[in-house]
Amino acid sequence: MTYCVALNLKDGLILASDTRTNAGVDQISIYRKIFKYQIKGERVIFIQCSGNLATTQAVIEHVNSQIKKDSANNILKVSSLFEVANIISEILVEIISRISSYSINQNINFKSNFIISGQIKNQNMMMYYIYPEGNFIHSTNETPYFQIGETKYGKPILDRTICYNSELKKALVSVLVSFDSAIKSNISVGCPINVIVYNKNHLICPKGITIPNNDVYFTKIREEWHRGLIDLINDLDMPPDIYFK
Amino acid sequence: MTYCVALNLKDGLILASDTRTNAGVDQISIYRKIFKYQIKGERVIFIQCSGNLATTQAVIEHVNSQIKKDSANNILKVSSLFEVANIISEILVEIISRISSYSINQNINFKSNFIISGQIKNQNMMMYYIYPEGNFIHSTNETPYFQIGETKYGKPILDRTICYNSELKKALVSVLVSFDSAIKSNISVGCPINVIVYNKNHLICPKGITIPNNDVYFTKIREEWHRGLIDLINDLDMPPDIYFK
Repeated sequence: MTYCVALNLKDGLILASDTRTNAGVDQISIYRKIFKYQIKGERVIFIQCSGNLATTQAVIEHVNSQIKKDSANNILKVSSLFEVANIISEILVEIISRISSYSINQNINFKSNFIISGQIKNQNMMMYYIYPEGNFIHSTNETPYFQIGETKYGKPILDRTICYNSELKKALVSVLVSFDSAIKSNISVGCPINVIVYNKNHLICPKGITIPNNDVYFTKIREEWHRGLIDLINDLDMPPDIYFK
Repeated sequence: MTYCVALNLKDGLILASDTRTNAGVDQISIYRKIFKYQIKGERVIFIQCSGNLATTQAVIEHVNSQIKKDSANNILKVSSLFEVANIISEILVEIISRISSYSINQNINFKSNFIISGQIKNQNMMMYYIYPEGNFIHSTNETPYFQIGETKYGKPILDRTICYNSELKKALVSVLVSFDSAIKSNISVGCPINVIVYNKNHLICPKGITIPNNDVYFTKIREEWHRGLIDLINDLDMPPDIYFK
């Protein structure tokens, strides 16, 4: 499984992805699920992916190969993030269609989801959610974040705390707490977590950070959050007697 | 959608079910998803259900009809909760098999899940999770709760706070907070919520309570919980600078 979150906020982008993949619980591996592309000062592009690992790897290979060949579908040359999303969605559909067309592969799930984000000089930051069917949607001020993979456990805290105007630092805390929920409830989501915070208009790829299982800061807030939740539950009023009749 | 939780704890059972069903977002209705059976002083049996509404209604009708006919499969006569679970799972499989066998119904989902719980005099309380495939598992001291329906949003808080030795009152608060998470993140889960708290060895069905949307206590703890979570997030340490490079 996978858990990826991407926020497109007024001051920048926050992207976070776990690195665990599994084909059955006895075949768990670590793979990066966030990829960075840039022309310094001109564009930054981030790709996050979830779903079938062979599909996502093939998509990334194709994207890289188009860049090397400097083809018309070079994501470092096209004029908008919309075109980047278009290119990746077409590659995705082609890969899924080909493998699904083999008669031995009926009813096998080769689907993957992608989140594409970034900025091109003199344009707004953009973020797209690409469905395995090949269509896609963009984020808005009202819906400033996307999740892919094991999304549900970590969604409630984002729903409660994230809005377009959230400060990057505070929003990152919410994202990490959201990962804590996903990790706690699904063993197939796990550290290390790759995090990238991109400041609007910088047009240079941040180095990003990889958070290991024993990261001092992450461990600290996970513990504080857990203790805080228990305290919070304990502080709530007890139900009235009528609940027990 | 549906959200049902059932806890089998040292002092009793806590059962909670929402009442919203939907066939598309424009066809939302209210149906009870928790059913009580008893012979006062001898046995109490509770059935909770999620999934295809026609299937769950048919199962309940069959259970009721076996009681009326006083057949060998009368759940008020058999000697254990295990036999009750067996009867219901067989009815379930038969109903799903029949409707699925029609050639017009290929690839349609008629599945339902059930949680059966209760107690028979001089026996332990028991709780079973019946899968639509017709097999079932029972709860244990290590795994004292089951969820069916829209389970994920409300799972993290149960994972953090519920254990077999939890007090009933405190556990009920956690269950209600769990419902708040499910309601907040999925519009197809909603009030009224039916709650039953059964005290071990009472062998009489509690009246239970139906919590409407504007319930004073539920509204109060939902607001306190929401404010508390925001405060808790705000109190966590900010990420170190290295997260932003």
